[in-house]
Amino acid sequence: MRAYDIIEKKRDKIELDKDEINFLIKGYVSGEIPDYQMSAFLMAVYLNGMTDDECEALTECMLDSGDRMDLSAIDGIKVDKHSTGGVGDKTTLIVTPIVAACGVKVAKMSGRGLGHTGGTIDKLASIPGMKTNLDNEKFFEIVRKVGCSVVSQSGNLVPADKKIYALRDVTATVESKPLIASSIMSKKIASGADCILLDVKVGDGAFMKTSEDAVELSKVMVSIGSRFGRKVAAVITDMNSPLGEAIGNALEVRESCEVLKGSGPQDLKEVSLVLAANMLYLADKGTYETCYKLAENALNNGSAFEKFKEMVKAQGGDISSFEGDHYVSEAKIKYDVVAWDSGYIHSMGAESLGKASMILGAGREKKEDSIDYSAGILLHKKIGEKVSTGDVLATFYSSDEYKCHEAEKIFKEAVCISENIPKIGKLIKARVTSEEIEKF
Amino acid sequence: MRAYDIIEKKRDKIELDKDEINFLIKGYVSGEIPDYQMSAFLMAVYLNGMTDDECEALTECMLDSGDRMDLSAIDGIKVDKHSTGGVGDKTTLIVTPIVAACGVKVAKMSGRGLGHTGGTIDKLASIPGMKTNLDNEKFFEIVRKVGCSVVSQSGNLVPADKKIYALRDVTATVESKPLIASSIMSKKIASGADCILLDVKVGDGAFMKTSEDAVELSKVMVSIGSRFGRKVAAVITDMNSPLGEAIGNALEVRESCEVLKGSGPQDLKEVSLVLAANMLYLADKGTYETCYKLAENALNNGSAFEKFKEMVKAQGGDISSFEGDHYVSEAKIKYDVVAWDSGYIHSMGAESLGKASMILGAGREKKEDSIDYSAGILLHKKIGEKVSTGDVLATFYSSDEYKCHEAEKIFKEAVCISENIPKIGKLIKARVTSEEIEKF
Repeated sequence: MRAYDIIEKKRDKIELDKDEINFLIKGYVSGEIPDYQMSAFLMAVYLNGMTDDECEALTECMLDSGDRMDLSAIDGIKVDKHSTGGVGDKTTLIVTPIVAACGVKVAKMSGRGLGHTGGTIDKLASIPGMKTNLDNEKFFEIVRKVGCSVVSQSGNLVPADKKIYALRDVTATVESKPLIASSIMSKKIASGADCILLDVKVGDGAFMKTSEDAVELSKVMVSIGSRFGRKVAAVITDMNSPLGEAIGNALEVRESCEVLKGSGPQDLKEVSLVLAANMLYLADKGTYETCYKLAENALNNGSAFEKFKEMVKAQGGDISSFEGDHYVSEAKIKYDVVAWDSGYIHSMGAESLGKASMILGAGREKKEDSIDYSAGILLHKKIGEKVSTGDVLATFYSSDEYKCHEAEKIFKEAVCISENIPKIGKLIKARVTSEEIEKF
Repeated sequence: MRAYDIIEKKRDKIELDKDEINFLIKGYVSGEIPDYQMSAFLMAVYLNGMTDDECEALTECMLDSGDRMDLSAIDGIKVDKHSTGGVGDKTTLIVTPIVAACGVKVAKMSGRGLGHTGGTIDKLASIPGMKTNLDNEKFFEIVRKVGCSVVSQSGNLVPADKKIYALRDVTATVESKPLIASSIMSKKIASGADCILLDVKVGDGAFMKTSEDAVELSKVMVSIGSRFGRKVAAVITDMNSPLGEAIGNALEVRESCEVLKGSGPQDLKEVSLVLAANMLYLADKGTYETCYKLAENALNNGSAFEKFKEMVKAQGGDISSFEGDHYVSEAKIKYDVVAWDSGYIHSMGAESLGKASMILGAGREKKEDSIDYSAGILLHKKIGEKVSTGDVLATFYSSDEYKCHEAEKIFKEAVCISENIPKIGKLIKARVTSEEIEKF
């Protein structure tokens, strides 16, 4: 078998079999197949796609490149959740304790942020004392006792994905549905949960720019999950503008607590409830309507917030900090951005706002960069709201005034104030399960 | 400017401008842009194509990567010829002296063979004493005096093509029309001739498998040539079975001499006359019909053969060897392959026969391999001929009986004997000039 022939087949739209995909992935991970052949293959996949069988084979080869988590030492159904990445997306912090408060276990591994998107692990790490790099024994113990725990990815899960993703990142082959699907699903399956809910973001700040593309990606991922015996569903949610009002790690933890306490931004609350309800539904807690009510109750009766504090405490975090605006005051500089015109906020580009927040210190441009947990953006106005010249649109939190000026430039380019009332798209666009595709 | 953005644009079918193509080619040649980005770009070009403007820009950047030959020290119009590569294709040896005998100068640089296709330089090198690595002074002197000379590529012509071709060769991106066109045309333009005739091979043994593809490729090459002020035409000729009856260096020289002496295989003679006539036509020697007659006369009156001997002598070759079967007898082993069935020869795969000849010692699998000039295949039967079981179909020439057995296996797979009379395609399929496309 030769890498050349496999590239040629994919170039000519001939379906690859499992042995061929295995040869390619194993050879690439071992270093026998060079980067330049793999990148030609990846571009051919980007442009010619992959069949469901190819996707399944690719996912399996990626899985086989490393270890798999065995969660069987934890009783009951374990549910996991994955977001394809957005700006201001702190739903894991809210959804995890809701689901655990409803009696379904969440043993979740999360990642760090890169570029304009944040990562759950960075958000949690902004809580003083919070540990996210627990060993499996401690991790399992907390899930058993509390019902949920969120830790950083550990061990040697899917090393093939790491190597291939790094190559995709420099060869313009990231936004390929079969490659995204096999990357996400191999990691989720390796993480060991029985049920997986996917939050597929769509819009300006997401990989998928249209609902149609997001539905297509979701179908592939749900199908892969089913082939590996997992219950998988996908919810397609809006990412044209940031979710909630806070962008930046400590700011997002505070906003999550607000939602868990029953207040907070309406869009964040709604997306969180839909995600939690779908996770409960996958775990057989009743009809979708029942599951939604269960999730709503857990928010309203305070049990979700209690569960969150329990989890943070178990992982060493200081829960006293959740009262007041402790972290936010840490930022040396608070910098208000005011409206340059009167009218309606017509758009608020999520990707650009994510970049602005990164520049303020809240994110990493490169993997090695360090983070300022107190940095970020608090939006006072959102899409569709009426503003007058001079109104404060947002407050920047940073340690450096120069960074605020840089971020302001990007902010002003990303936010459009117009005379006309904008048409606001739906927050929840669609839901894809192995049985049906519902569009809202 | 970033290589990433250029790859992304090509991936998304957005036309690149000259600066972007220049950035990519220069960066790749200098080593700043790595192989893995270039190969992703090449695959995107393979699958998404290039516009005429992009092809022109690519050709120019390739040209600018090295030196250009200046033939102005030779008076008169200089005509060049290029074949996209075939099996048994020795037309350069015949066409060059015909054209020179008609008073048009040919200062030609040729390449060595690789894989199943032979190279003119290897064929010439099989003549005892023949030198092909002449310096420009000597080369020009011979062209001035004799009217023609064929030498190996020298100097630093189009180094970008060398580097890019090596990468295409291992990433399944060779058979791309814009990449083939810019590779060929940059080398031909750098070689300095005023007129360029392209022999675009089509069929089993060629890059282009259909006449439509060959016409498309020809159009691109003719258009590039015109943009650089060269007169270019392309003739599309059959390469489903080998041209003539000889495959292998010394065997092909002998067959060329036969044609130059007025005998030899009809197909080889016809293709050679058409190519020569088109070269004379490009050099303004009259109407196409006049030019064809001129070429025919040069063959019939022996002036072409005299010109050939003059050129060989000028380059140090021993012309006494052209009488008799001197080289052929050098081969240690002559091995007859006989018909395993009775019927008509239905097909005779050129690519496989080229491989069989390579295995016998006539070609190189890798660049470093050495060649046995006496090795090769002499076909006694060609497509369409009737044969009976036991008839000798071909004679193999080699130094090793084991190689003959290996080559025989490939030969038998490549040659089909059938009860039905096969339909034989036209030898000359089409002609593409800047004014028109003629299909025959």
